Amino acid sequence: MNIPSKVHLIDVGPRDGLQNEKQPVPAAVKIELVHRLQAAGLKEIEVTSYVSPKWVPQMADNHEVMSGIARQTGVRYSVLTPNLKGFEAALLDRPDEIVVFGAASEAFSQKNINCSIAESIERFAPVVAAAKAAGIAVRGAMSCTVGCPYEGEIPPERVDYLAGLMKGIGVERVDVADTIGVGTPHKVQAAIEATLKHFPIAQVSGHFHDTYGQALSNTLAALELGVWNFQSSVAGLGGCPYAKGATGNVATEDVVYLLHGMGIETGIDLDALVDAGQFISEHLNRPSGSRVSRALLAKRQG
Amino acid sequence: MNIPSKVHLIDVGPRDGLQNEKQPVPAAVKIELVHRLQAAGLKEIEVTSYVSPKWVPQMADNHEVMSGIARQTGVRYSVLTPNLKGFEAALLDRPDEIVVFGAASEAFSQKNINCSIAESIERFAPVVAAAKAAGIAVRGAMSCTVGCPYEGEIPPERVDYLAGLMKGIGVERVDVADTIGVGTPHKVQAAIEATLKHFPIAQVSGHFHDTYGQALSNTLAALELGVWNFQSSVAGLGGCPYAKGATGNVATEDVVYLLHGMGIETGIDLDALVDAGQFISEHLNRPSGSRVSRALLAKRQG
Repeated sequence: MNIPSKVHLIDVGPRDGLQNEKQPVPAAVKIELVHRLQAAGLKEIEVTSYVSPKWVPQMADNHEVMSGIARQTGVRYSVLTPNLKGFEAALLDRPDEIVVFGAASEAFSQKNINCSIAESIERFAPVVAAAKAAGIAVRGAMSCTVGCPYEGEIPPERVDYLAGLMKGIGVERVDVADTIGVGTPHKVQAAIEATLKHFPIAQVSGHFHDTYGQALSNTLAALELGVWNFQSSVAGLGGCPYAKGATGNVATEDVVYLLHGMGIETGIDLDALVDAGQFISEHLNRPSGSRVSRALLAKRQG
Repeated sequence: MNIPSKVHLIDVGPRDGLQNEKQPVPAAVKIELVHRLQAAGLKEIEVTSYVSPKWVPQMADNHEVMSGIARQTGVRYSVLTPNLKGFEAALLDRPDEIVVFGAASEAFSQKNINCSIAESIERFAPVVAAAKAAGIAVRGAMSCTVGCPYEGEIPPERVDYLAGLMKGIGVERVDVADTIGVGTPHKVQAAIEATLKHFPIAQVSGHFHDTYGQALSNTLAALELGVWNFQSSVAGLGGCPYAKGATGNVATEDVVYLLHGMGIETGIDLDALVDAGQFISEHLNRPSGSRVSRALLAKRQG
């Protein structure tokens, strides 16, 4: 067992979590959410995306949000940039890291971003090059690494292929995402192992969805391979807009509870994190997707 | 890794799951639930309890339910019997197994059954002896083996103590229950290891609650110790009446999904199980507590 003693969490709530909200969330609320997350001890936050507001209207306020954050030293602020135009807009807001995204499933790539996997990588290559020239880190999000809503089960060879392409264009770290939450421990480990052929363990993060309630067992399985970077979403915000029934980013609170219970350090104050989740859940007028949050709030009420 | 290739699941839904329902559930519905569970492939079902209807009115129809079941060969029907009077009533209905229950927490024992742990064991001793004399198997449910709502964290030494007492009065198998769902993998493994000092692995089952969303990661942790008996509740029915916020038996559907995804045999037909869960959820007029069930039903609707 290579279970790490410390884990680094990347909260994707402000971007991945909020992007599909129908009602516009004011920039001030997004900024406050980022502030609360960093106050709770998060050292990496996926803040917004620079995509056409036609496609993702919720992220149209990317500049307002990025320029409104009181940045803390030691916190990494990342943004999604699907193309050069997006990257150039993002550059003005000085993100610490940009994120490009590809799918391990051809069908998902076609339906999600209207091109093949290979074409998507070609499109990202100049973005990656420009980011590196500007001294900005680059993360590659790899979706559907276990299953795809259109193709079903995705074999590890497809992850191996995508990770190799990502590496080839200079992506520095990758997320192994189970976008539709169908993964179970051995399958998730196989996807991670395929990725480890191209990236060292420090550059690989796990991104699990709780659609089938499997995210924490998959997290444990990833920890057992030595993975120590994970993505999660405060209050379990969000999901994937294009994958039917694929809501359910695992809640950061639930991951932190698991890790702290195992004696693994995260640097995160769970109570402050629950408050951050409660802040955004109240704004959205819905119960938190985090079981830990619901249990702790019930306990607080005594 | 000793991960087993087959797992035996004990569905506690009809008893543990339904016991706290305020509205009486008709005996015919309980019988239908048991029939659906066995048709789905469950080989062990906790059917009812023989306790005073003053305390648990929902189980007042124990005789009607037990005598109404069309029993299948190879399926074990168990019932809860807290004392000799309950046992004698149960005996007339020929259960395959009786269940006695003790807590690893003194405070919980006092609040739950009004006596110390040692006193509860004394009370169960003649029940166990009578069951064995009648050729009926005996299971011991050990609650609060990781945490207690009154005492907080429970050290493994308390589990060791309780398991030893259970063994001492002739209990044949025991459940390691995380009654309030606060456990995480290492803590659950410590409770199981304490139990393994007294019982062989084949006689130890895991019973995890999903209050904090940790049940499946704890299941994985138990599998890694070689545990191959687990308790769960169809549709995530039920919880513990006396432990505040302690709702949340893990859903059988979610456990089956995990196991099948890992290539572990259960003999259970997941679709039939989802139907069984949907049957009782519709009767109770509430959504299933199973994420797998909700995801699969959404998928069926296309």
